[in-house]
Amino acid sequence: MNLDDVLARIDHELPRATERLLQLLRIPSISTDPAHAEECDLAADWLVADLASIGLDARKHPTPGHPMVVAHGGEGGPHLVFYGHYDVQPVDPIELWRRPPFEPAVEDTPKGKVIRGRGASDDKGQLMTFIEACRAWKAVHGALPCRITIFLEGEEESGSPSLVPFMRRHADELRGDIALICDTGLVGEDTPAIVTMLRGLLAEELTITGPDKDLHSGMYGGAAVNPIAVLARIIASLHDEQGRITLPGFYDGVPEMPQEILDQWQAIGFDEERFLREVGLSQPAGEKGRSVLEMIWSRPTCEVNGITGGYTGEGFKTVLPASASAKISFRLVGRQDPHEIRKAFRAHVRSMLPPDCEVEFLGHGAAPAAQMSTDDPAFEKARRALSEEWPRPAAYVGCGGSIPIAGLFKEILGMDAMLIGFGKDDDAIHSPNEKYDLESFHKGTRSWARILAALTG
Amino acid sequence: MNLDDVLARIDHELPRATERLLQLLRIPSISTDPAHAEECDLAADWLVADLASIGLDARKHPTPGHPMVVAHGGEGGPHLVFYGHYDVQPVDPIELWRRPPFEPAVEDTPKGKVIRGRGASDDKGQLMTFIEACRAWKAVHGALPCRITIFLEGEEESGSPSLVPFMRRHADELRGDIALICDTGLVGEDTPAIVTMLRGLLAEELTITGPDKDLHSGMYGGAAVNPIAVLARIIASLHDEQGRITLPGFYDGVPEMPQEILDQWQAIGFDEERFLREVGLSQPAGEKGRSVLEMIWSRPTCEVNGITGGYTGEGFKTVLPASASAKISFRLVGRQDPHEIRKAFRAHVRSMLPPDCEVEFLGHGAAPAAQMSTDDPAFEKARRALSEEWPRPAAYVGCGGSIPIAGLFKEILGMDAMLIGFGKDDDAIHSPNEKYDLESFHKGTRSWARILAALTG
Repeated sequence: MNLDDVLARIDHELPRATERLLQLLRIPSISTDPAHAEECDLAADWLVADLASIGLDARKHPTPGHPMVVAHGGEGGPHLVFYGHYDVQPVDPIELWRRPPFEPAVEDTPKGKVIRGRGASDDKGQLMTFIEACRAWKAVHGALPCRITIFLEGEEESGSPSLVPFMRRHADELRGDIALICDTGLVGEDTPAIVTMLRGLLAEELTITGPDKDLHSGMYGGAAVNPIAVLARIIASLHDEQGRITLPGFYDGVPEMPQEILDQWQAIGFDEERFLREVGLSQPAGEKGRSVLEMIWSRPTCEVNGITGGYTGEGFKTVLPASASAKISFRLVGRQDPHEIRKAFRAHVRSMLPPDCEVEFLGHGAAPAAQMSTDDPAFEKARRALSEEWPRPAAYVGCGGSIPIAGLFKEILGMDAMLIGFGKDDDAIHSPNEKYDLESFHKGTRSWARILAALTG
Repeated sequence: MNLDDVLARIDHELPRATERLLQLLRIPSISTDPAHAEECDLAADWLVADLASIGLDARKHPTPGHPMVVAHGGEGGPHLVFYGHYDVQPVDPIELWRRPPFEPAVEDTPKGKVIRGRGASDDKGQLMTFIEACRAWKAVHGALPCRITIFLEGEEESGSPSLVPFMRRHADELRGDIALICDTGLVGEDTPAIVTMLRGLLAEELTITGPDKDLHSGMYGGAAVNPIAVLARIIASLHDEQGRITLPGFYDGVPEMPQEILDQWQAIGFDEERFLREVGLSQPAGEKGRSVLEMIWSRPTCEVNGITGGYTGEGFKTVLPASASAKISFRLVGRQDPHEIRKAFRAHVRSMLPPDCEVEFLGHGAAPAAQMSTDDPAFEKARRALSEEWPRPAAYVGCGGSIPIAGLFKEILGMDAMLIGFGKDDDAIHSPNEKYDLESFHKGTRSWARILAALTG
């Protein structure tokens, strides 16, 4: 095995690799818009052809929605299963794009070259880093380093309706030793990361009702219970002055991070100030005494995601509303039990209801947090490989949001997943003028080559 | 002067008076709907003709909207100015009406005869009580008892856009010694009332902003300030556990009611339980230690009339919103100064803003409470006259809402107003199947005859 030759090949191929990515980016595979169904199909065809050109056995699988692409190649262990998605977000508001979103190009910017276009970062550019690494390996060695399955979805941006049934039906060909998922980012500018903790989510909607109809506040104001005020008191009661959540038992199963992980986080040079400044904020608003990274990766939260009640149109109406509702979600960590927390939340709300008020709950899903078993030596091998490519050592990090595919590999196929990606915070994914740094594409491809070497060496 | 003959005449004329009211009710004078403009005009014409038939000098005055009707008659003091409105509410939802809304009729019900139809109570039936009293007086005595101006508006149900300019331009002919307004109700079933206190209103809209865009709660949840939670804490802070409003200085100028007024209120037999039960409630939710009548007539309030923020559609979106807003109003009493309270409210909100949050206020009007000078002997005379007609003594009462015309008589013409009406809580004004009890119509007419006698005797 000659890793240096593979890396040199990647460097040399960069212009052609970029041209291939631009081809894929020209296909407007917007999965949520039925008008683009044919183009989703085209993108799948393009990938099947490209994967076949490296010698993989690639096939397009129809689903009730957009097709899946599955390709197999190589021999010997370990069996690596790579996941990415070829569909992209819609482009609205189109008038904010400085170039047509599906006429991508490499642009010079003050911070370096970027590949501009819808999907450049999420996820076409990212998935092509792995494919280009395989292509270079094949070119240098004549074969892939081990058994590799590439699994590409076309519905990730529209709720993945076909994913679970497809994974169940194709469990045998999708099951491997470990999953590699390329849909995340670097920390800051240049710290590679492996996501090993994903927060869970409990989502609840509640509606408080009081009077049996909307009342005139002149006639009843002062005597009738006001459901908006009741809801406001309930929401206000969910946090204490330290920013901690007040539900009884809420922190059961919330682990303190080991010092070595906190040290890694300390070392990655995450710029709290900049992270907040980018969204117009100057200081963290969460739990007192915690770093921003802890707040978003390893601490649970309670957020109000929406609220409505009474008259919300233009002008004023002195209505005393019959009801008010809110959507409230909890991000969960460690071994927090979403079902216990749902029970505690509902009991707390009921305990705060004044006479004549009722509450109705609507559950919107309850998923526990996911924690990868970093005891598997593959994790440490990949971390060292990444550290060699980038100026800073790689870190095991958390992810504040949920990435359902990681949980599905575990749940359906019993595999751990390594989430490794090269996106940056300013990539503007889901927004106008999406880009992927040429450096992310180039060093991302080199990173996968190093990881393939490390996992098979 | 022979009051008994006038009352006998009213009793004898009741069938014909009812027929006249039914004629007026057949005209669909819905002021808010441009399709009914011609019918508003027709209603004005009908009234001009009817008033002329009693010998009044009646005229229809065009306005940019619907016409005003002004009629003068009689000689000698005092000069009484009567106000009512001939326009009615729309009829939707039409399918809930048990008879066509503009094909009125007298119906037998378990509780007695009622006049059923849109406008029967609000306000055609009520305004006709005064006109029928004048007609009977004229028939018995050959002349009205004093100088009387009848002023009828056709835009009350659509915001009265022409009212203020018209009152200013016609101030000379509309100015009298006291205004009589027939657009209110009895207390309970049979207690006549003169409204002498009208609560004022301060309406504020506020928008709290935090992050400069909507954020993903997975990425920022726990670290970024949540404007909905901030707004909820502010709303929750506006009342204490006793239901009192916490703004500094809020209760400055709030009078305690004199014992004699509280005794009057005690005597009117207001059924708190029934009042609440009719809207699905079982107990008063306002200031502890106050009766419901105090809560809605003589105590100030703070109500949230609307709230919105974040995602409020179907399903769930884990957005961390950039802003949240609410509409909040205060009902004011006594000498509370709306401008001072606005200042105190805004200062309080600002004092509760956490770092990185801003607030924007939009004022929606600020009107002080109105208190009639019941020292004017006319009030006591009218109260005694009403007490003679009805089984229970009349009371000076409050009104939780605002009735702009009462304030305008004071502000533009310098006159106090006596608000006297005979509607009942179950008249279903603004709703399907509106009715006016035949007893309200009959005894209302007799009440005005007694009041005319009392004010001129």
